[in-house]
Amino acid sequence: MSRLFMFEKPLGMRDTLPELYEKKLRVRSVMAETMKLWGYQFIETPTLEYYETVGAASAIVDQQLFKLLDKEGHTLVLRPDMTAPIARVAASKLLDEDLPVRLAYSANVFRAQQREGGRPAEFEQIGIECLNEDTVSCDGEVIALLISSLKKAGLRQFQVSIGHVGFAQELFMQILGTNGRATALRKFLYEKNYVGYREHVNSLQLSSIDKQRLLMLLQLRGGEEVIGNALDLIENGKGKQALLELRELWDVIKDYGVEEQVKFDFSIVSHMSYYSGVLFEAYAGNVGFPIGNGGRYSLIEKFGKKATATGFAVRLDMLLEALGELDVKNSTHCIFFSQERRKEAFQLAKEMHRQGKSALLQDITGVKNLDAFTKKFAGTTYLIGGHTDE
Amino acid sequence: MSRLFMFEKPLGMRDTLPELYEKKLRVRSVMAETMKLWGYQFIETPTLEYYETVGAASAIVDQQLFKLLDKEGHTLVLRPDMTAPIARVAASKLLDEDLPVRLAYSANVFRAQQREGGRPAEFEQIGIECLNEDTVSCDGEVIALLISSLKKAGLRQFQVSIGHVGFAQELFMQILGTNGRATALRKFLYEKNYVGYREHVNSLQLSSIDKQRLLMLLQLRGGEEVIGNALDLIENGKGKQALLELRELWDVIKDYGVEEQVKFDFSIVSHMSYYSGVLFEAYAGNVGFPIGNGGRYSLIEKFGKKATATGFAVRLDMLLEALGELDVKNSTHCIFFSQERRKEAFQLAKEMHRQGKSALLQDITGVKNLDAFTKKFAGTTYLIGGHTDE
Repeated sequence: MSRLFMFEKPLGMRDTLPELYEKKLRVRSVMAETMKLWGYQFIETPTLEYYETVGAASAIVDQQLFKLLDKEGHTLVLRPDMTAPIARVAASKLLDEDLPVRLAYSANVFRAQQREGGRPAEFEQIGIECLNEDTVSCDGEVIALLISSLKKAGLRQFQVSIGHVGFAQELFMQILGTNGRATALRKFLYEKNYVGYREHVNSLQLSSIDKQRLLMLLQLRGGEEVIGNALDLIENGKGKQALLELRELWDVIKDYGVEEQVKFDFSIVSHMSYYSGVLFEAYAGNVGFPIGNGGRYSLIEKFGKKATATGFAVRLDMLLEALGELDVKNSTHCIFFSQERRKEAFQLAKEMHRQGKSALLQDITGVKNLDAFTKKFAGTTYLIGGHTDE
Repeated sequence: MSRLFMFEKPLGMRDTLPELYEKKLRVRSVMAETMKLWGYQFIETPTLEYYETVGAASAIVDQQLFKLLDKEGHTLVLRPDMTAPIARVAASKLLDEDLPVRLAYSANVFRAQQREGGRPAEFEQIGIECLNEDTVSCDGEVIALLISSLKKAGLRQFQVSIGHVGFAQELFMQILGTNGRATALRKFLYEKNYVGYREHVNSLQLSSIDKQRLLMLLQLRGGEEVIGNALDLIENGKGKQALLELRELWDVIKDYGVEEQVKFDFSIVSHMSYYSGVLFEAYAGNVGFPIGNGGRYSLIEKFGKKATATGFAVRLDMLLEALGELDVKNSTHCIFFSQERRKEAFQLAKEMHRQGKSALLQDITGVKNLDAFTKKFAGTTYLIGGHTDE
């Protein structure tokens, strides 16, 4: 092979070395354990899916999809998220009884990157989906489980911001009249470009009252009181319906006792076209990107079943960044042996393993630099040279 | 999307539903725990690698590779095994100190299939590699760890068959003279087509003594005594060297106390060109395909470092088939609630979670068919209707 490529990985692809691996495993395990305690069942779906189904349903922009052709000429994609594959599985196998279904996953997803040194093109999401269950209680459950699992993972400082697809959309439609004009504004919000949003609003041919209403949207952040303020801004039924849902959701969240981690933020929108209700994002103070997000969506309908679902996904890499240093020390003991005392060494290792202690066996003739090697371990034992008396 | 494709997955791709997921998780966890106790450190590598490096080094036939093009026109592959990616990582980052490195992995690998209903195109391997450690002790360690981890996984009836790349190869070269003629015979062995091997040997222009020697190869199966029989068959240095290695390996295996699970089988060969020494395959009585295999190989040299390695990979799907039924019962309790007693329900669930009991909360208004739903759970509690006195 060419020396140029010998050590290279494709753009955005990364290796996970042992220390990071153990951190990921630990965080993944406690989150998965919490999800299972709440009654969610884990599933796994294939890395490759048909572009025509899951690829198209995923709502990840096309240029971020890794595509390939199979032998029959069909386009395949590396799954860009888990929501669409889970909708496929559920619609094809799990919703025949028309009952609520609670699923969980931890899986790598794939989004092609354009630049070296940018975001990872493969990253792990751990998340849940509660399907075919339309109650606000279930939206609350998902948010409470997000908070509970983040706490179990050891995260101290974080906040879940909740919005609703219906509110901003109805406000925009009331004032702007067309979806095209609404889309322009929504894009500023999705990109968290609030300066751009303000400038755009001020440039519009609108009454100063309507401009004020659009700008007020950015102020609708905080606790329960925000719902009252929002009710003053909106006229029609759908927008008010969204607010009543959020009021009920707030009661559910209070009953879960997790309201300290929650605030409303009515400027939250999504680029995912399938969201249909409550939307939320989890932020940790020190990370500039949401560590998790979710909401209610109607994606399952694309797979032929009339059902909505609500769920969340946490990005494990972002969560690890938020958690900062985790103490994952190497507690392995090294037992060096020579041929004469090999059996004795094996028995010692076996006994240590039985006690749950990590013990590595090393033929002393297999190591060139003994000093450098011993530094890798918490301790060492030498069983070399002549036999001991037995 | 077209209804034809709606529920379809690409050829050889499978969903893993909750029961199988939990079985896989349980088996993977105990095997990983065993590997860590023996001092192996887990790493993860990207799903996508450059074809020019890992794809070409993997020695999986080209038509089994899933290939795609990146933005810059480079060919990428979905990793077909983990041995080549680990060689890449080790050569680029972990072998600078010229010390032994012990790594482990559990990862999905990808091999395109030609037919519907055939083998999976994506499957999980869990395995280890001990790199830059040339001793026979280390070959023995790898085999003993394979046996130990399979036992921990719950496997009772299995056997590890051990051969050596050097023995059959030298025997063939001595008798046949050219590598081309040796390759034809090797192919029969790799395909376990012993009838074809016999017929091919009998069709060759050889003395009856040489034919007898080639046919004897198939008889070299059994315990330590096989090495003596093999010594009678081979003349030259390399073949004898292989046998002396195996004799030493047998002593190491006896010192580990796992000789009951081991036999020699000198007809074992590999289609992987990078194997350079001991080779082995693990079989469980009821599965017609090896559940694991491994050996010593020189692949790291392709990545510019002079080092050999020894390791094994277990196919989790084959191991699960060998294990048969595992009891993974759903012990989740369902708590139905109505709005009036929601908070009480949440507190009950919280207390059960604190005790490590799986409890699912379900708003009673979110379920259409209560009877069908309750059947999913180990037990149910109803907190509905009027308030209790507090």
